[in-house]
Amino acid sequence: MEVIKVRRSIRKFSKEAISEENLDKLVRAGMQAPTATNQQANCFYIVRKRENLDILGDKLQNARMLKDANAAIVVLINKNKLNKPTMKSQDAASATTNILLEATYLGIGSCWCGIYPNVERMDIIREVLKLEEDFIPFSIIALGYPENENQFYFIDRYDEAKVFRD
Amino acid sequence: MEVIKVRRSIRKFSKEAISEENLDKLVRAGMQAPTATNQQANCFYIVRKRENLDILGDKLQNARMLKDANAAIVVLINKNKLNKPTMKSQDAASATTNILLEATYLGIGSCWCGIYPNVERMDIIREVLKLEEDFIPFSIIALGYPENENQFYFIDRYDEAKVFRD
Repeated sequence: MEVIKVRRSIRKFSKEAISEENLDKLVRAGMQAPTATNQQANCFYIVRKRENLDILGDKLQNARMLKDANAAIVVLINKNKLNKPTMKSQDAASATTNILLEATYLGIGSCWCGIYPNVERMDIIREVLKLEEDFIPFSIIALGYPENENQFYFIDRYDEAKVFRD
Repeated sequence: MEVIKVRRSIRKFSKEAISEENLDKLVRAGMQAPTATNQQANCFYIVRKRENLDILGDKLQNARMLKDANAAIVVLINKNKLNKPTMKSQDAASATTNILLEATYLGIGSCWCGIYPNVERMDIIREVLKLEEDFIPFSIIALGYPENENQFYFIDRYDEAKVFRD
């Protein structure tokens, strides 16, 4: 599938705004991801304010590109909704993946910045976005239209040595 | 994106075989998934033998549908390739998600059966597939063409209460 092939981490963005309609599509894509026993404990925080993007980009060592991003989505896990707590990060990773692919489909560049289970990073997100204790910040996805053209290209990661068959 | 909308867990399969070409596409999709610091520690075990599918379906309580499946892919994590061990399950979940979406794109039904971090389930996979100690079994994806037509339909999981904005 083309979208899976050409998705890449994009860290340099143009000034072009992402429409509310497209942000909505991204969140909807995240919510369609499978969850263990269909627990659907994922939630989504859309960050649009320049100030918040800049503060998060300053404080999160692995998310500097937020200072250049047009928006971000934080994938959260609602602790109170977990039937299968051991599967929570798998569920949230699946939602994050859906958002990256939907972004690629819409021509929007994205970069997955890992937060959970790094306590320092989780605390930064909680503090800046003033999250309630119920929510575990799992990932933050930087979003923006790519600064340069033709940024969606295929880098073949296939390695036959990683495939086994019975 | 249509494929994200219509992906569902499918557990009833027809007898139609999945071609080697399509199994290859599924594994390639898995390998394109993002990994933390690009560690690319995911590996893939393609299960085709009826005997193995049946034994795994018998032994794994949450993967009974393997007895009806045409094939399966086990997503593995190679312990020796981990720069960021805390992110290993996120990486493998992203690869699993890519495979589910590629399958949907190809008209192949799929069901994600969680394995890691359940030690009992991990041991069953290790034993049946005779895996070396280096590999952590993360998930097993049952695969087959859907028994009934029109199995790829949209179930809207959107819930506005799960969306926050700054």
